[in-house]
Amino acid sequence: MKLPFADRLASAVRSKQSSLVVGLDPQIAKLPEEVRAHAASTHDDPREAAAAAIEAFDAAVIEEVAPFAAAVKPQIAYYEQWGPPGLAAFEHAVVRAHEAGLLVIGDIKRGDIGPTAEAYASAHLGGASDELTPGGGRYADAVTVNPYFGTDGIQPFLHAVRDRAAGLFVLVRTSNASAGELQDLPVRGQPLHEHVASRVVAWGHDLRGTCGYSSVGAVVGATAPRELARLRECMPHTWFLIPGVGAQGATAADVGPAFDRDGLGALVNSSRGIIFAYGSPTAPDWRRSVREAARRLRDELRTAALQAAP
Amino acid sequence: MKLPFADRLASAVRSKQSSLVVGLDPQIAKLPEEVRAHAASTHDDPREAAAAAIEAFDAAVIEEVAPFAAAVKPQIAYYEQWGPPGLAAFEHAVVRAHEAGLLVIGDIKRGDIGPTAEAYASAHLGGASDELTPGGGRYADAVTVNPYFGTDGIQPFLHAVRDRAAGLFVLVRTSNASAGELQDLPVRGQPLHEHVASRVVAWGHDLRGTCGYSSVGAVVGATAPRELARLRECMPHTWFLIPGVGAQGATAADVGPAFDRDGLGALVNSSRGIIFAYGSPTAPDWRRSVREAARRLRDELRTAALQAAP
Repeated sequence: MKLPFADRLASAVRSKQSSLVVGLDPQIAKLPEEVRAHAASTHDDPREAAAAAIEAFDAAVIEEVAPFAAAVKPQIAYYEQWGPPGLAAFEHAVVRAHEAGLLVIGDIKRGDIGPTAEAYASAHLGGASDELTPGGGRYADAVTVNPYFGTDGIQPFLHAVRDRAAGLFVLVRTSNASAGELQDLPVRGQPLHEHVASRVVAWGHDLRGTCGYSSVGAVVGATAPRELARLRECMPHTWFLIPGVGAQGATAADVGPAFDRDGLGALVNSSRGIIFAYGSPTAPDWRRSVREAARRLRDELRTAALQAAP
Repeated sequence: MKLPFADRLASAVRSKQSSLVVGLDPQIAKLPEEVRAHAASTHDDPREAAAAAIEAFDAAVIEEVAPFAAAVKPQIAYYEQWGPPGLAAFEHAVVRAHEAGLLVIGDIKRGDIGPTAEAYASAHLGGASDELTPGGGRYADAVTVNPYFGTDGIQPFLHAVRDRAAGLFVLVRTSNASAGELQDLPVRGQPLHEHVASRVVAWGHDLRGTCGYSSVGAVVGATAPRELARLRECMPHTWFLIPGVGAQGATAADVGPAFDRDGLGALVNSSRGIIFAYGSPTAPDWRRSVREAARRLRDELRTAALQAAP
């Protein structure tokens, strides 16, 4: 039996001395020219060519960042965009990341009524003992989920946490510019996202690992530092998955308040800032740029965590 | 250039005299035994077998319900569950439904930050003129989306409405038991879902067709009749997509208030109540049960719309 996700995560952060999550957002137009050209020359179908380019790119990125990252976070939209071959590339990324010793957070942000959420949980975290649901390294360790449906839409994912050592990150306060339109609306004197936070605490209450954190985490954007600090108070035992550093504008220093004195409690994601660190698709030695960007952010996060320690 | 989605929908409802949407939720265990057995005998890989069973089942269901339904609504979770072959089956369902003259609402409930939402919009509604994004009958006419990210997560879908005559249905008040946990929280004297409703009205304001309704619709559950009536007042020019009739407990009579005097304005979805109308997977003549269930609900909805007319 696998350890609870929360503990596997704590162990990865400690052993790698890294809170870095590298987001795999393989936007096709930004991939290195040589990678796209090779894929196009070996595949006639445009969707298969795109998927092949993404597979080759992901393999390189995973190899370069593996020493510096605790996890990768493939964003399924950039795979789904290419249909069935794209979804196969998504699975390949998961398998390859596992082979490289990385945890995988499937960034799927699904949310639906109970029976449908169950199908999503089985799609991404592995099914029950159904003969038709083979297991294997192609399932993510954790996924992101949307809370809009309330408890019964989350329940099937909680079962996966309990029965299959999976992890969850529930959207609480996102990193985009218009996040506040709904998420900050005032409900009984508190912003809506704090009500969501209290649900997340309740959903994860019985699912804490020996590290002290729950396997039910929260997505909290780095672009809203005041909310981040306040949410840390509301959710002291919750792993935070923090997007918004890099391309979205926040810095490593902004996320300091999310860490505890041992440097645990927060995972910080950067996607475009790392995987496209080389700038132009024709840049030479793009792999080195990716590697150095990962190393640099890993180091910056380590400093931020140390400075934040009381 | 295609007509706006809102007008294509109005035309389908009028010509079929039907407000029925048949939800394709192909839960594998409920499929007719003969369909599963045939697929299993011709495919070794369990995911390919599942996808083949779903394809055969969908083809039969689409043929049986086409005379009575305005649209079908494939729920992508039940396809995604089977990986790349499942996603191929989803595309086949879309293509086949189009061939049968049905509109297709992709029930994807995606929601994310802008660039990611753009990838989802291109995955399901067709891409821009990018050489790598081929067009075709495999794209849905409309999709369901989650509003939690606010305007910038919706914007790429609005572009698809404007540029490619697509439709949207934004989650406002869902049909599940715990929907109210977040959606009914009080915000300045109104439930949260009414604030979402006012966003939906704003997003769809410039996108009204000649039928009077906008191509930006709302998902409003039939299981909350009081909220349904109130939301009709808040959103007089918004197409409602109404789940919750059938397996989830609501009846055709519950949705009467959603229709206008011409019988327009609302689409009513039933999934399990129609596609699994035959009950047991070993039931003989299951296709006939599906057909009759679709015909019956179509008729009940017609009666409900007529009685609701002022």
